Amino acid sequence: MTIGIDMMGGDFAPLEAVKGINLYLSNHNIPPALLLIGDKIQIEQLLTTHKVPTENIKIVHAEQVIDMHEHPTRALKEKQKSSIAIGFHLLASGKMDAFISAGNTGAMLVGALFSIKAIEGVIRPTISTIIPKMNGGTGLLLDVGLNADCKPEQLNQFAIMGAVYAQLILGIDNPKVGLMNVGEEEGKGNLLAQATYPLLKENKHINFIGNIEGRDVLTDKADVMVCEGFTGNIILKLAESLYEIAQHQALNNQYFDRFNFENYGGTPVLGVAKPVIIGHGISGAKAFMNMIYLAQQMIEKDVMKKMKEELS
Amino acid sequence: MTIGIDMMGGDFAPLEAVKGINLYLSNHNIPPALLLIGDKIQIEQLLTTHKVPTENIKIVHAEQVIDMHEHPTRALKEKQKSSIAIGFHLLASGKMDAFISAGNTGAMLVGALFSIKAIEGVIRPTISTIIPKMNGGTGLLLDVGLNADCKPEQLNQFAIMGAVYAQLILGIDNPKVGLMNVGEEEGKGNLLAQATYPLLKENKHINFIGNIEGRDVLTDKADVMVCEGFTGNIILKLAESLYEIAQHQALNNQYFDRFNFENYGGTPVLGVAKPVIIGHGISGAKAFMNMIYLAQQMIEKDVMKKMKEELS
Repeated sequence: MTIGIDMMGGDFAPLEAVKGINLYLSNHNIPPALLLIGDKIQIEQLLTTHKVPTENIKIVHAEQVIDMHEHPTRALKEKQKSSIAIGFHLLASGKMDAFISAGNTGAMLVGALFSIKAIEGVIRPTISTIIPKMNGGTGLLLDVGLNADCKPEQLNQFAIMGAVYAQLILGIDNPKVGLMNVGEEEGKGNLLAQATYPLLKENKHINFIGNIEGRDVLTDKADVMVCEGFTGNIILKLAESLYEIAQHQALNNQYFDRFNFENYGGTPVLGVAKPVIIGHGISGAKAFMNMIYLAQQMIEKDVMKKMKEELS
Repeated sequence: MTIGIDMMGGDFAPLEAVKGINLYLSNHNIPPALLLIGDKIQIEQLLTTHKVPTENIKIVHAEQVIDMHEHPTRALKEKQKSSIAIGFHLLASGKMDAFISAGNTGAMLVGALFSIKAIEGVIRPTISTIIPKMNGGTGLLLDVGLNADCKPEQLNQFAIMGAVYAQLILGIDNPKVGLMNVGEEEGKGNLLAQATYPLLKENKHINFIGNIEGRDVLTDKADVMVCEGFTGNIILKLAESLYEIAQHQALNNQYFDRFNFENYGGTPVLGVAKPVIIGHGISGAKAFMNMIYLAQQMIEKDVMKKMKEELS
């Protein structure tokens, strides 16, 4: 198993990535091989300074960096020697099994969508977010922005992919799948939700519990919450803002602290054939450690294979 | 000026309505005439028990009640002698100038849409909610559920109606109008948001500030936040749940207390030619008082006339 890491992505690159790798290695006896992509001299210096054990580490030099605000498609095309472009090249050609970056989100998405194949049968990949639940548990909301306009069949696939992810990665047995909607009863909602409900109801691969409403997002009514990316993105960003509000109000509350999404590491692009994990720009060492661990989990538990089975 | 009140609507009817009227009358020297619609004997007894001054009060007997869970269209059709049906009849025929109910929301909406004319030029009326802002201010979000699927022209009208309401009723001078979206830049969003942006941008009747995101809902970036009713309803119910969470977490925080929407009275149906105000089922005396005051304000400030002017 080889996991590739873009060392140049994120606000604190490459320092926090190096520190995250160190954290990860100190917690794992038999670590996978790590491919560190970025400025070789900088990386080597930091590895030495932080006394990172390098038995399982290889560096792949990348002389360019895609900045956070560059146009994703253009940057990927023009900066073939950037860490992100090289990362996708290595992933697509089988030189590594997963790719992690806290860099330009758009470029990561474009790379995932256009250089890595979708899982057979997937109409469109999706991105999800973890949602902290009031009872202490964790839910999954998807799509959160990759697909602003969706067809019912897409939402049906999000439900399957989300359920597989919730089960294998979040450890939720037989996850309850809910359709984000404006009312509980079947028949409620906009045209998309109305047309999606029967698909989910008849879907044997998921444990569909019906419609859920805005008030259910933070409760444990559903583990996997399905919607198009417009609504999902607005929910995600509203949820993220709760952490700031809690800070602003000096709440000092453990539940609201869980809305600090920086802690969660990154979110995988679901529906592509290999793990691609996108981190917050502001990712720190702990986030990088968590992303490497997530990549390892996704490979070990063969999340993609399970998704393919459930989707067919 | 005559304001009609459905005395039989809401979980605590008619007691809380009577107490609310009493509160209202004790705060207003020259009150409008109030038309109390419901069970005459019950109402008279309560007015006496609570020593409500009755100079400005008339009772209109209604021998039926539409329950909270009845099918709106069917109930309105079959229960012609219900307080809601009589209320709309009186409003439509000009016997009163506004109608308030905390009863069956669906029946109130059906009544407003089908027995009261829309303001000239309005494609579809809308309902809004107040959003407590972190800085202490108050925003307006619309639509919050009446129109799950919308066209760009409808969102453009919501923007105008919301801006008029924010200015005249919420007292916000030159309210900033934002389009709920998934990113800041023009061109972001789903097809609806993309098509709506240029309409809002060219709309001379509003102070359009561009796209806003989920993280801006609770900040003061925009005063009037425009979206279709699917997204808006989910935002509203998620916001409502914050109060419960604050209770559950025993936060005892003034800002989160403001998410107790029961305090706000009710929400008007915007875009119909006369004020129709729909309260929470759980409305208490204070909510009823606020609803009567809102109806009075909407009449005195001629909100409907201003909307008509701005829409044309």
